[in-house]
Amino acid sequence: MPGNSFGQSFRISTFGESHGGAVGVVIDGCPPGLLLSESDIQPELDRRKPGQSAITTPRKEEDTIKILSGVFEGKTTGTPIMIMAVNQDQRPKDYEKLKDVLRPSHADYTYLAKYGLRDWMGSGRASARETLARVAAGAIAKKFLKERAGISLVSYVEQVGSVRTEIDPESVSSAAVESNIVRCPDSSVAQQMIALIEKVRDEHDSIGGIIRGVIHGCPAGLGEPVFDKLHADLGKAMLSINAVKGFEIGSGFSAATQRGSTHNDPYYRDAQGNVRTRTNNAGGVLGGISTGETILFRVAFKPVATIGKEQSTITLSGTPTTLQASGRHDPCVLPRAVPIVDAMAALVVIDHFLRHVAGR
Amino acid sequence: MPGNSFGQSFRISTFGESHGGAVGVVIDGCPPGLLLSESDIQPELDRRKPGQSAITTPRKEEDTIKILSGVFEGKTTGTPIMIMAVNQDQRPKDYEKLKDVLRPSHADYTYLAKYGLRDWMGSGRASARETLARVAAGAIAKKFLKERAGISLVSYVEQVGSVRTEIDPESVSSAAVESNIVRCPDSSVAQQMIALIEKVRDEHDSIGGIIRGVIHGCPAGLGEPVFDKLHADLGKAMLSINAVKGFEIGSGFSAATQRGSTHNDPYYRDAQGNVRTRTNNAGGVLGGISTGETILFRVAFKPVATIGKEQSTITLSGTPTTLQASGRHDPCVLPRAVPIVDAMAALVVIDHFLRHVAGR
Amino acid sequence: MPGNSFGQSFRISTFGESHGGAVGVVIDGCPPGLLLSESDIQPELDRRKPGQSAITTPRKEEDTIKILSGVFEGKTTGTPIMIMAVNQDQRPKDYEKLKDVLRPSHADYTYLAKYGLRDWMGSGRASARETLARVAAGAIAKKFLKERAGISLVSYVEQVGSVRTEIDPESVSSAAVESNIVRCPDSSVAQQMIALIEKVRDEHDSIGGIIRGVIHGCPAGLGEPVFDKLHADLGKAMLSINAVKGFEIGSGFSAATQRGSTHNDPYYRDAQGNVRTRTNNAGGVLGGISTGETILFRVAFKPVATIGKEQSTITLSGTPTTLQASGRHDPCVLPRAVPIVDAMAALVVIDHFLRHVAGR
Amino acid sequence: MPGNSFGQSFRISTFGESHGGAVGVVIDGCPPGLLLSESDIQPELDRRKPGQSAITTPRKEEDTIKILSGVFEGKTTGTPIMIMAVNQDQRPKDYEKLKDVLRPSHADYTYLAKYGLRDWMGSGRASARETLARVAAGAIAKKFLKERAGISLVSYVEQVGSVRTEIDPESVSSAAVESNIVRCPDSSVAQQMIALIEKVRDEHDSIGGIIRGVIHGCPAGLGEPVFDKLHADLGKAMLSINAVKGFEIGSGFSAATQRGSTHNDPYYRDAQGNVRTRTNNAGGVLGGISTGETILFRVAFKPVATIGKEQSTITLSGTPTTLQASGRHDPCVLPRAVPIVDAMAALVVIDHFLRHVAGR
Repeated sequence: MPGNSFGQSFRISTFGESHGGAVGVVIDGCPPGLLLSESDIQPELDRRKPGQSAITTPRKEEDTIKILSGVFEGKTTGTPIMIMAVNQDQRPKDYEKLKDVLRPSHADYTYLAKYGLRDWMGSGRASARETLARVAAGAIAKKFLKERAGISLVSYVEQVGSVRTEIDPESVSSAAVESNIVRCPDSSVAQQMIALIEKVRDEHDSIGGIIRGVIHGCPAGLGEPVFDKLHADLGKAMLSINAVKGFEIGSGFSAATQRGSTHNDPYYRDAQGNVRTRTNNAGGVLGGISTGETILFRVAFKPVATIGKEQSTITLSGTPTTLQASGRHDPCVLPRAVPIVDAMAALVVIDHFLRHVAGR
Repeated sequence: MPGNSFGQSFRISTFGESHGGAVGVVIDGCPPGLLLSESDIQPELDRRKPGQSAITTPRKEEDTIKILSGVFEGKTTGTPIMIMAVNQDQRPKDYEKLKDVLRPSHADYTYLAKYGLRDWMGSGRASARETLARVAAGAIAKKFLKERAGISLVSYVEQVGSVRTEIDPESVSSAAVESNIVRCPDSSVAQQMIALIEKVRDEHDSIGGIIRGVIHGCPAGLGEPVFDKLHADLGKAMLSINAVKGFEIGSGFSAATQRGSTHNDPYYRDAQGNVRTRTNNAGGVLGGISTGETILFRVAFKPVATIGKEQSTITLSGTPTTLQASGRHDPCVLPRAVPIVDAMAALVVIDHFLRHVAGR
Repeated sequence: MPGNSFGQSFRISTFGESHGGAVGVVIDGCPPGLLLSESDIQPELDRRKPGQSAITTPRKEEDTIKILSGVFEGKTTGTPIMIMAVNQDQRPKDYEKLKDVLRPSHADYTYLAKYGLRDWMGSGRASARETLARVAAGAIAKKFLKERAGISLVSYVEQVGSVRTEIDPESVSSAAVESNIVRCPDSSVAQQMIALIEKVRDEHDSIGGIIRGVIHGCPAGLGEPVFDKLHADLGKAMLSINAVKGFEIGSGFSAATQRGSTHNDPYYRDAQGNVRTRTNNAGGVLGGISTGETILFRVAFKPVATIGKEQSTITLSGTPTTLQASGRHDPCVLPRAVPIVDAMAALVVIDHFLRHVAGR
Repeated sequence: MPGNSFGQSFRISTFGESHGGAVGVVIDGCPPGLLLSESDIQPELDRRKPGQSAITTPRKEEDTIKILSGVFEGKTTGTPIMIMAVNQDQRPKDYEKLKDVLRPSHADYTYLAKYGLRDWMGSGRASARETLARVAAGAIAKKFLKERAGISLVSYVEQVGSVRTEIDPESVSSAAVESNIVRCPDSSVAQQMIALIEKVRDEHDSIGGIIRGVIHGCPAGLGEPVFDKLHADLGKAMLSINAVKGFEIGSGFSAATQRGSTHNDPYYRDAQGNVRTRTNNAGGVLGGISTGETILFRVAFKPVATIGKEQSTITLSGTPTTLQASGRHDPCVLPRAVPIVDAMAALVVIDHFLRHVAGR
């Protein structure tokens, strides 16, 4: 089976390249009766769109989407929802000179190896523009989770290069995340991050970072043993985002140096009679199933592959050459990746929420 | 769809609890004509079995498997291969006292929340015994990959607690991994690891660590954009293993602090005319598709949840109580997890290998 | 993806050949808390087993199954249920002489064409013995549907050769079906069928027929537009049974000669306020979704391919030869196919029942 | 998993209602390098479109499609192909009066039962307009099968009411099918069919019929045991088409009255050394796998549910009422269903073709 679909009970199939006719998504499995219009989706897309601030690519794309099926009289019908954005900002000339060059750490060569041909105008399906479809679908998932399940998600930039906030993830609000252009809820650290990204940009370079994901209100019991563990599906979802190199749930890699006696999360019963844990090294998941505690995860992004500095590489025929991007790129992908992390997390949770309902 | 199956073209479905009748796997999609007998599988299981050395649980399980279908006259037929191990070492009395207790950082509570009832004899499907089925299936995948595709896999313990080897992953042989009981190919570091595990064991505690996975000979072109990226499926596979808290491909979390100008892997053409990269921060995957370079990943394990130290917890009805395990547990899961990491990696690669063939 | 699994929310994966170690099934997705033991399953298997009466094959197979996972303290746990029957009646010598012969209208040649090799001992996966696994899984589905959803199924032999009952399908009880060895609830027609089958048997030949399937109590609303229509999945399920050549829902092929004005089923509201139809040409399904009326379908079976009469064919190398079966075959597969039709129908309905729950 | 996708290796996901923004399909898994443009697809759509002749609905829909992704420089790229037709002929007033009425033998009531709400403008997903997406995808499948696998398909109207042709299916050409408006290759019978349809139309009624499907050039070995048999998937595909009530492969229901000695297809070796059968009661499939003979199947269609005659029914609230359609309907769906049968058959064969390649 090809790989352009994600989820089982809430299943999305994305399509489109940055320089074809359109980019979009078909969502199959959205329950009926959800109030839905374009205005529920557009704000999430605006968080993702290029040209939104001084530290993103200056390239402008409006990303205006339309819902073309699955909604009737303002409500979802339970049938497939198709959402699409027509492509506009086409500049084939920009790409003409890249036609025969293998850009380092892009997917040019691997697509060619896989398919025997490649769409050289803007990376084909490896284009970041594909994530527009994910964010649109994720916006619907977020709305459903909030209205029908009391689950909310917030993601934020925790680290850029070596600049890092130690803010308590459980305390972070969406408003705080949106209060600055780098999407770090810790305002003083945010300023350092912005300064670093501007410095990197001015040096015609790029920089990586880490996004923290937080899921509030997830009830105990979501997730499927043994392969479709909740955090395994979260991990896959995050690793499927362009530029992601690592994923952690709860204690993550720091668990490697811990002892069981300190890592284990002791149970207690709270005043309301709920089973709770005193610590949350688990990150809200045990045995692949949610515990009812906040779900906490981290996602590592590599520096953007497109840089303004000159790099050495080869042509398709193997001849050494050099490459220097002309500037319409993000020096740091993190601020615009926050809504994508949100979206993918929402897609995983809604899918397991609906799967859980079926299994009972 | 329930979560006990993995893979699409080479699809495994595992079954069984540690204290039911049997544990096993049905493999659907193994190509016909592969020479196969139990002796191809048993060595991998012996690497996984309890009681194999001084630093694993003293519990003895023979894990003797039988192939009950899908092989005719010594060759696979292309039809489902069922492999099973009958359960033997049943000690219900050991578990009777755990019947009403929520063990910290085990899946007792989450299974109960999900299913409304739970198998209290040995964790049900969350039992480590389930991994026997994965290793058996993985052994077949490894054999196929080696014989038909020239792909080989080697995994090893890179870190236990803070003890870590800096050995070059590309240089590690299976023989070196098997040369000591901790499965670290760096013999002096291995001794330190063993000493640490023994110390932890004597303190009735447990310790985490990191396993490195290495895949040699994977041709360029495997992996599916955009969701079923090769490393996304590897990540899911690893995160589905008990006790895993994190996954990295290539540079992983260290990419967060890097610049594009140093992280990008420059292309060149080697003496044989192959497209290669001078560095491998990608870890052998770009855009979700293999580059032809060695695939490198790391998997973080938490310390084993079962410890001999007394812990505070609650009963099913919420009453505070204490818990102290009696000793048949591993102080460190890493040495026995190496073949499981191998197996899951092999299952991902064979699946993408067969999917790739279909897509061309 | 290979083809040995069926269903999505209640998913079965069957394995085993007639002359390997065992035949069985893994069921993934059975909800937790269902009381279950071997004694719930065995009666259905006894309806299917060879040697049960004078008009079936004299071959004896006990088909004694064991549940090896997924049940704890007498209840399903929500995890995979593995059920298996060990193979016993192995007579390789019977098959030795068939090793090089292509039996007409069997799957020998097509398996060879597909896989490049074949299991010549008893047809491999094409063996009727594979249906044991379907019936075992179907028995659990029937139990769940009866206890949790108020849905019951009854199938019976409606036609053998040209001998046919005109009994009203809605009036047929399971007891009536089991009241004679041919499983036709119309006792006088049953005697004619038995006489015909005995005649055919004595002539060393075989004969086809039709099974009627009836599903009572299915609520309106099950089935998924547009491809996974309830009757489309029923049709696939039936056509996947060995020897089936045709499937009809409701009016079936007779609809071809009808007018809309007579074929349409008028709606009315009954005394209880339910929406009902005055006729049921639909067969209980409209637009792929159940209407709440009884679901009615028919399944056509070809005559058994194995016959005692001499037939001309060729060897594997193409040499003309003749073939004459020695007698351990059914002259008519219908009586033993009734529980298989029941089972497959139950598997389709439980799957759509669980899928429907998730989609709301 | 929801039901709007079909196929595994060549997977289509359709979307859209007759009165939303658009109707279309995403095709995932089309191999790269196939020459493709809208002009390869439009002719098949023209065979399906309303208003094409005197015996179809007078409603005009242009069904002009666009390819919006997955094709680059005139060739498929191996990534998802999205094809869409914008909806135009919207007449909400026609439907306003149907808002509260349950139309007999339509899916109004069952959609309502399933989803709790329904799109009353033109049947939602149950609209025949959805088949546009199938035909578009099928056109690509047909092109691939012809160019890369030497497989061709032809379907035709074999029966309307009781008017039936006895033409040899193997002899029928596409040109003969297209030589008249009813799509029956037997011209004298075609005239009788047309006369019958005109008579039925003038009586404000509708009539059913049978379509024959023929697949030439399918190599031996396609199809997956045991559930995804080639003819089981064909059956599901056909039964998923609106108005279909029955499916037969090869001898079909007539097999019920046959003896094994006459039904079995004897093997022989032809002059080219190929294994062939002297008869083809199997219909080109044995054990679910293609034999290499021509694949022959039949599909029964009920009369169109929308008729001009007055019918009695009830409103949503249960009040008895009458209903009389105003005329924009087909008196017989068969002529326009021919390309849909073609398309669905092509989708099944390409899927099994690609699956077979992966399994070897």
